Amino acid sequence: MRNTFGHIFAVTTFGESHGGGVGAVVDGCPARLPLSEADIQPLLDRRRPGQSDLTTARSEDDKVRILSGTEGGLTLGSPIALLIANADCRSGDYDELARAPRPSHADFVYKTKYGILAAGGGGRASARETAGRVAAGAVAEKFLLTRHGIEIVAWVSAVGEIEAAAPDLAALSRAAVDATPVRCPDPGAAAAMAAAIRAARDDGDSIGGVVSCVCRGVPAGWGEPVFDKLSAMLAGAMLSIPAARGFDLGSGFAGARTRGSENNDAFEMREGRMRTRTNHSGGIQAGISNGEALLFRVAFKPVSTIARPQDSADWAGHPATVQFKGRHDPCVLPRAVPVVEAMAALVLADAALMAATCR
Amino acid sequence: MRNTFGHIFAVTTFGESHGGGVGAVVDGCPARLPLSEADIQPLLDRRRPGQSDLTTARSEDDKVRILSGTEGGLTLGSPIALLIANADCRSGDYDELARAPRPSHADFVYKTKYGILAAGGGGRASARETAGRVAAGAVAEKFLLTRHGIEIVAWVSAVGEIEAAAPDLAALSRAAVDATPVRCPDPGAAAAMAAAIRAARDDGDSIGGVVSCVCRGVPAGWGEPVFDKLSAMLAGAMLSIPAARGFDLGSGFAGARTRGSENNDAFEMREGRMRTRTNHSGGIQAGISNGEALLFRVAFKPVSTIARPQDSADWAGHPATVQFKGRHDPCVLPRAVPVVEAMAALVLADAALMAATCR
Amino acid sequence: MRNTFGHIFAVTTFGESHGGGVGAVVDGCPARLPLSEADIQPLLDRRRPGQSDLTTARSEDDKVRILSGTEGGLTLGSPIALLIANADCRSGDYDELARAPRPSHADFVYKTKYGILAAGGGGRASARETAGRVAAGAVAEKFLLTRHGIEIVAWVSAVGEIEAAAPDLAALSRAAVDATPVRCPDPGAAAAMAAAIRAARDDGDSIGGVVSCVCRGVPAGWGEPVFDKLSAMLAGAMLSIPAARGFDLGSGFAGARTRGSENNDAFEMREGRMRTRTNHSGGIQAGISNGEALLFRVAFKPVSTIARPQDSADWAGHPATVQFKGRHDPCVLPRAVPVVEAMAALVLADAALMAATCR
Amino acid sequence: MRNTFGHIFAVTTFGESHGGGVGAVVDGCPARLPLSEADIQPLLDRRRPGQSDLTTARSEDDKVRILSGTEGGLTLGSPIALLIANADCRSGDYDELARAPRPSHADFVYKTKYGILAAGGGGRASARETAGRVAAGAVAEKFLLTRHGIEIVAWVSAVGEIEAAAPDLAALSRAAVDATPVRCPDPGAAAAMAAAIRAARDDGDSIGGVVSCVCRGVPAGWGEPVFDKLSAMLAGAMLSIPAARGFDLGSGFAGARTRGSENNDAFEMREGRMRTRTNHSGGIQAGISNGEALLFRVAFKPVSTIARPQDSADWAGHPATVQFKGRHDPCVLPRAVPVVEAMAALVLADAALMAATCR
Repeated sequence: MRNTFGHIFAVTTFGESHGGGVGAVVDGCPARLPLSEADIQPLLDRRRPGQSDLTTARSEDDKVRILSGTEGGLTLGSPIALLIANADCRSGDYDELARAPRPSHADFVYKTKYGILAAGGGGRASARETAGRVAAGAVAEKFLLTRHGIEIVAWVSAVGEIEAAAPDLAALSRAAVDATPVRCPDPGAAAAMAAAIRAARDDGDSIGGVVSCVCRGVPAGWGEPVFDKLSAMLAGAMLSIPAARGFDLGSGFAGARTRGSENNDAFEMREGRMRTRTNHSGGIQAGISNGEALLFRVAFKPVSTIARPQDSADWAGHPATVQFKGRHDPCVLPRAVPVVEAMAALVLADAALMAATCR
Repeated sequence: MRNTFGHIFAVTTFGESHGGGVGAVVDGCPARLPLSEADIQPLLDRRRPGQSDLTTARSEDDKVRILSGTEGGLTLGSPIALLIANADCRSGDYDELARAPRPSHADFVYKTKYGILAAGGGGRASARETAGRVAAGAVAEKFLLTRHGIEIVAWVSAVGEIEAAAPDLAALSRAAVDATPVRCPDPGAAAAMAAAIRAARDDGDSIGGVVSCVCRGVPAGWGEPVFDKLSAMLAGAMLSIPAARGFDLGSGFAGARTRGSENNDAFEMREGRMRTRTNHSGGIQAGISNGEALLFRVAFKPVSTIARPQDSADWAGHPATVQFKGRHDPCVLPRAVPVVEAMAALVLADAALMAATCR
Repeated sequence: MRNTFGHIFAVTTFGESHGGGVGAVVDGCPARLPLSEADIQPLLDRRRPGQSDLTTARSEDDKVRILSGTEGGLTLGSPIALLIANADCRSGDYDELARAPRPSHADFVYKTKYGILAAGGGGRASARETAGRVAAGAVAEKFLLTRHGIEIVAWVSAVGEIEAAAPDLAALSRAAVDATPVRCPDPGAAAAMAAAIRAARDDGDSIGGVVSCVCRGVPAGWGEPVFDKLSAMLAGAMLSIPAARGFDLGSGFAGARTRGSENNDAFEMREGRMRTRTNHSGGIQAGISNGEALLFRVAFKPVSTIARPQDSADWAGHPATVQFKGRHDPCVLPRAVPVVEAMAALVLADAALMAATCR
Repeated sequence: MRNTFGHIFAVTTFGESHGGGVGAVVDGCPARLPLSEADIQPLLDRRRPGQSDLTTARSEDDKVRILSGTEGGLTLGSPIALLIANADCRSGDYDELARAPRPSHADFVYKTKYGILAAGGGGRASARETAGRVAAGAVAEKFLLTRHGIEIVAWVSAVGEIEAAAPDLAALSRAAVDATPVRCPDPGAAAAMAAAIRAARDDGDSIGGVVSCVCRGVPAGWGEPVFDKLSAMLAGAMLSIPAARGFDLGSGFAGARTRGSENNDAFEMREGRMRTRTNHSGGIQAGISNGEALLFRVAFKPVSTIARPQDSADWAGHPATVQFKGRHDPCVLPRAVPVVEAMAALVLADAALMAATCR
C-alpha cells in the first residue's frame, strides 16, 4: 500500500512486471496545461530496456496511453490516468525463485510481509514499476517547464570507481547526457564506465554508481520548513527508487568534513536578484529553495540479480548455490537517469502547488 | 505548514525559539502503553544545550509536561500533547539580522516565502524546534521498546576529517555513546573530535560531521514497497533535521563503488530464522526490513551561524561584512544524536502500525 | 483534484463520461484475498444504465478489467487497477451546452473553477464517474465479507412523496431489493414509485428520493473518536455521491425531535454479548460502531438535467430558454443503490484497517 | 487517532475533559494575518458552559493562550498552538461509570476499542473537546473574513417539535442570534424552545434539535469535484460534532420529495455576475460553490446523559437501573451554534487554500 506520492500534485502508481500493465494516475495537475502522449513517450523511451548493449535485452514497447483527464490536448483539472500495457513476459525465466530467494532482492521480504509472492518475480519491486513514475514525471515536467521555466537534467556521475568530471551545470543538456549510452556527459569517463559495465556483465556480475541531478529555474520559497523540507522530500523521493541507497545535497557528505566559513554561501546581488556566490547548499537552505540551482546525488547499489552462481540459502534455509537466469541490467545507472528526473519533477510540482498556499 | 510527520503514528510539532514554548501532539499512539514525563525528560536532557563546553552556552530547562492523552500512567489512545515552555530569550542577540540575512541560514528563504521574519531569528528553523521531535520520539521509543523490543542507538561517527572506528553494533549502548561529551564511543576519535570542535569554536567557526545509527530488533516486513519504502521514510526523516545534508543506508555511497557479487547479502539459517551473512543492505531490502539491524548515516553540514565576520550582502543586496553574536553550537553533532534517534523512532512506530494492516 | 478516498484502504478514481474509460486504483487491500473480475462485474451491472424503462436509454457495456494487483485469483497486496472502457459516446447530444449552462448542474461551477469545460458535458460530474466507485467498492465488499462477514444492503425507501414501509433489517437481501426495477423491497410502494418516475419522465421532468442502507456484522470498535467518526466518514462518503443532498444516521432528523429518555438505546446482554435493546443510534455511538447494524439514509435531489425547456440564462447571462436533449435518468434512485453500498464498503474497509492499529 | 482535520489548513486537536487542558494546533494558516487571543476568546465564551440556565452549571473559564505561530500580532506561517487549561474537575460525579456504561454514550465503545476508559468519563467524547475546535475555527474565521470577506452565522432552528421561522439570510447576524439564550433569532420560537428545554431539564431529561447555518460571501469555485466535494466536507465536518446525527444542504431532505423543474435553480445575471434565482442548491452545485450563500442544517440528538434513572445493563451485562449525576446540558443546541460555525470555517479555510492550486 501507500503507492501515492505527493500532497496536492499526487501520483498513484500501479502495476507489476507481469500482468495487464503498469501506469499512474496523476491527480491535482492544474487545468488548461497542454498535454498529449507526445510529451510522455520520449521520456519513457529513455527508460526503456534494450536501448544499448549496456542494458537488459528484455524488449518492451512501453507505449503510453492517456486514458482520462485531457481533451483537445489540454488538461481538464481531473485525474490523468496513464497506462503502459505489458508484453514480452517470460515468467519461466524465474523458476529458480520457487527454490530460493534472490540475495538482496525483494523476494524474502515480500514473502514475509504479504505471505504471497508474484510468480513473475519482482512484482512491485521490478524495475518496470518505474515506468509509471516516468510517465507521471513527464506530466510534472510539462507543468514545471510551461508554468515555471524549470529544467531538470540528471546524469551518471560515477560507475564503480570511475568518477566523471563535474559538468557546466548552467549549460548541461539532456542531449549532452544522451550522447553516450552510459548517459555520462564526460566522454572519457563515459568510455571507461561503459567498459566497466561490460566487464561486470561478462563476469555475470553487476556494478553500482551515482546519478547526479541539477534543477534549474526553481524560484526561491519552495519547500516547507520542518518535516516537508524540499531536501527531505527529495531524499525520500530518491530513496524510493529501486536500488537507491544514498542521497546528498550540495556539498553533502563532503561538506560534512568542512568548517562553516568554507561551506557557507555568501550572498550577493547578481543579475538583479539576491544570489549566493557559491552553491554548497545545493539550492536549498533550511529546507526551502533559495533561487539557486538544486544539485543533488543519488547512490545506487549494484543490481542484486546477477547471472553468476551465489552461495546462499533456499526458502527452507538450507545452504544452496543459487543462479538466476532472468534478463537484467548489469548496471542500472543509465536507465535510472530518467527515473531520478521524474522523481525530482514530482517533488517540485507538488512543492510549486504547496507554495501557492502559504501567504 | 506541513508540520505533521507520519501516517498513523502521526506527530505534529509547533513552537519557535522565542514565544510560549515548543511541543508536539502525538496522535495514533496505541492505548494502554505505560507513559509518563519520566520517559521523556531524560531524552530531552540529552538534546538540551549547555551539557558541555562543546555546545552552546544558551541554557534551557526544557522541562516537558504531558497535557493530555494519558491517565494513571497509561496512554488512552487519544492525542498526547507535550509542552516544553520557553525561557532565557535574548532576542537582542539577533539585532544584526535586521541588517543582513545570515549566509546559508533560513533568514533569506523565510522572508522570501512568508514575507515576514520572526524577530528572534530562526523561528521554526531554530535548533529549538527539535525539542518537540525528541519529546515525540520518546513516546515512539517507549512504544517500540515495550511492544517490539526495539533499541535505537545513534553516535557521532565523524567530525570534520576525523572518523571513528566502527563499534560493535550488537553491543553498542547509549551509555557507551554518552561516555564522552562528543558522543562518540571510540575514545581516541572522541578526544580528537573534541579538540577539533574546540579549535573551530576558538576560531569563531563551526565544523560538520556524521551521525550513524543502528536500530536493533526490527522484525522483517516493515516498510512499504514503493514510495513509502522504509529507506525512503528514513531518508526523508533524516533530511528534515536542521543542517542534515546527506543520508545513506548500509553500504550506501561506498557500496555504489562495488559489484553485486561483493555487495549482495547471502541468506543463511541462523538462530532459528532466515538471516543474512553480511548486512550491506543495512537491514532493508526493496524498501522493507529484512530482520537484520537497520544501519544508516546522516551527514550534517557545519552550522551556518558562526561568530567570525563574513563577507556577504545586506538585505538590500549591498556588499557587507556581517557578524552574528547569538550563542550557537560550534558543532551540532553531539546534540544531533538524540534527534536522529527520535526521527528513527517516529519512522519505525509509524511503520509498525502500517504493517498491522497489510495481510 | 483529491480523487482519493480513504486513509489505508485508499481508492483513487479517474475518468470522464467521454474519453478512454473510467476506473479506480485500490491501494491498501490486504494480500491473499480471493478476487477476480467475477466479483466486480455483477455490481457494475446493477449500476449500469439501460436496466429498465426507469433509467436512461444510454447503453454501456461496463466491462471491468483488473490490470494489476492480483495473480492466480488472489490479491498480492499491491495496487489493484480497475479499468472500464468507454463506448457509445454521442457528444452531439450536448451541443446546447455551448450556449448555456444547465441549471443546478456542474457546467457553471466547473467553468468557473477550471476555466475549461469537457465538451462531453459532465466530465467528472457525470454519473459515469460512479462506475469507478462501484468497481472499487466491490473489492472492499469482498474484503469485508471474506474477513469480517459483513453484509451491506441498500434500497430505495422513498421516491418523491412515496415512502416504503420499513423492511425487516435482519433479513433484507439484495435479491429482495432487485425484485422490482425501482429497487424497493415494499412491492406496493415500488409500484407507486415506478408510476411516479414514469410520470416525471413523461413530463420531461425528474424526481428525487431517499436511499436507505443497512450494514450487518460490523463489530464494535470501528471508527475514530473525533474528526474521523464512522458517522462523519459515512456522511462525507454519501454526500460525495452526485445528487446527494442529505444524510442521517439511526433516528436522525426524526430523533432530533425527541427526548433523551426516548432516544437512548438501553444496554442488555443478548446472544452472549452486550447489545442495545433499540437502535436509534444506527449502530454508532460517539462515532464508533457499537456492534449493532449500521442504518442510515441518503437524500437525493431530482436530477438537474431534464428534457423540458427551462427559463434560465445563457453563458453571457442573457435570459434564455434552455433545453437539453441528452439521455438522462428521470430518477437516479434505482441506480444509486449500488453506489451507496459501494461508498459504505469503502468507509468500512478503511475503518477495519484503521481499527487494527489502535491498541 | 486521526485528530487532524483538513488538507492544507490542517487542525489537530487534543485534550480530555479532565487533565492539563484542551487545545489545537493550526497548521497551514497563511502568514501575515492579524491574530491575537482577542480574536479567539469571544467565540470560546459563546461555547462556554454556564451562560444561562439552559446549559450545564459546570463552570469553566476557558481562557485561550496562543503558544506559537504569531509575533507582534501577525501570523508567521508556522503552526499556531492554542491551549485552554482545564479547571473545575469533579471526577467524583462520574462514579456510577465504574458500574455501568451510559446508554448511547461513548463509554461502551471506547472501552471496547481501547481497552481503557478515562476515569473522568467522556475523555475525547466530552463536549469539552469542542473547545479546541472553536479556538481553531476562530483562526479560520479570521482568515476567511480578512482575506475573503466571508461571514458565517448559525442559529438554532428547531428544538424538539418547535421550529423557528426562516430568518432573512442576507441580514442575519450573530448579535440577532445571541439576543436569546437559546440562540434562535425568531423570538416567539425562542421562548417556546427555552420552555421546552426547561421542561426537559425539570424532568431529568434532555431534548434534541436542529442548527442551521448560512455562509455568505463564498466565491464560486471552491470545493473539489469528487470525494472532496464542498458538500461532502461539510457533511463530514458536521457529523464529527458530538451528538450530530444528520446533515442536509439547501432543499435537502425536503428537496428529495420534489421534481427537477421545481428544485432546479435558474441562472440570471444579477448585481453584475451570474447568480441563481432560487437557492435550493444551498450554494453548492456538483460539490463546488456557485457564489450563492451556503445553507445547511445539522440534526442533533437529545444528549444521552440524563439525570433520571434508566433501565439498562451494568458492565457485566446484568440488568440494572442506572443514574448519572454529572452536570450536563439538557439541550446541546445553544452551545452547538459556535461549534457548527467553527467547523464550517475549518472546511472553508481549507477549501480556499485548495482552490489556490487548481488552475
